[in-house]
Amino acid sequence: MSLKVLCDRILADGRSLEGVILKVDKFINHQMDPYLMKQVAVEFIRRFSDLRVNKIVTVEASGIAPSIMLGYMMELPVVFAKKKLPSTMQEAYVTTVHSFTKQSDTQLMISREYLTADDHVLFIDDFLAYGNAALAICDLCRQAGATVEGMGFIIEKEMLHGRELLQKEGISRIESLAIVDSLENNTIHIKED
Amino acid sequence: MSLKVLCDRILADGRSLEGVILKVDKFINHQMDPYLMKQVAVEFIRRFSDLRVNKIVTVEASGIAPSIMLGYMMELPVVFAKKKLPSTMQEAYVTTVHSFTKQSDTQLMISREYLTADDHVLFIDDFLAYGNAALAICDLCRQAGATVEGMGFIIEKEMLHGRELLQKEGISRIESLAIVDSLENNTIHIKED
Repeated sequence: MSLKVLCDRILADGRSLEGVILKVDKFINHQMDPYLMKQVAVEFIRRFSDLRVNKIVTVEASGIAPSIMLGYMMELPVVFAKKKLPSTMQEAYVTTVHSFTKQSDTQLMISREYLTADDHVLFIDDFLAYGNAALAICDLCRQAGATVEGMGFIIEKEMLHGRELLQKEGISRIESLAIVDSLENNTIHIKED
Repeated sequence: MSLKVLCDRILADGRSLEGVILKVDKFINHQMDPYLMKQVAVEFIRRFSDLRVNKIVTVEASGIAPSIMLGYMMELPVVFAKKKLPSTMQEAYVTTVHSFTKQSDTQLMISREYLTADDHVLFIDDFLAYGNAALAICDLCRQAGATVEGMGFIIEKEMLHGRELLQKEGISRIESLAIVDSLENNTIHIKED
């Protein structure tokens, strides 16, 4: 079931560009609506209420806002994967992720100090598109011996089949709060429940 | 006056490296403590209680967590300056920022849609070091005709004189919740009130 307040907002303030791009930078990934992020966090809590997790993991930058709201409510630490190795990070797990949207390869890394074999991870991100960032997080967790318990996305672009890729990877709990199944004719179509 | 809970945490979990680097990636800028971020946000509200602002502005990635907490409590939108021009952003204000920490120039940009002459901005970031990121935000606001009402930082490295640079730029309201005045001998020293 979709989060109605989110779907309404996507239809009101989102825009479809060139049939593939969903522009939501008015309220999610450039200008952010903190109240919507709170509602998103509450919905993630509902959907993952059966899971036992001890850490939220996300990717810089757009995943941080929903993750910190969720971490605050669940009283859990939040770790964001970084795209550049900071001078303060000596030992890190590193993986490569291809972004089809940006047409480039980037590296993602998490310090060995903050991802360990004791961790049961809930991964949160703004978008599930092709699933490459999520797959990269799976790889980092595998390197660390951590368990990915579930993955939550604010918006899923169903036509890009990221969910299938993640399911093949063994991720059984995937929740998206709004599933977009078409952006054709510059029209946003959200999948009915 | 410093925020005691923050200073205690810096002394307990922070580390000084090579006399200049303050490593706080256990609770601020890689792994994040959402509860501390909430306390930071509340302290910013207290310190800026006399200001009239309509927008929080920050820089990806480490400024997002305190900013979204603050935006949530103040019921204000949060805009984060981006380091790469997204494919969905057509018209942006762009500026260059030099990072001494990372020894590189990066660009920062904010869409013209989300920063305008009507905006009274509170800028929030995790660190005030040399002040270059903050200065870049001043430039973006100047381009947009927006007013910077104040700047709030979780940690200020006083010995790098960023505050003086910003004051020369005409920023009169600068608040830092913990002021570090020395990292010599791999020891963190926080300025007394």
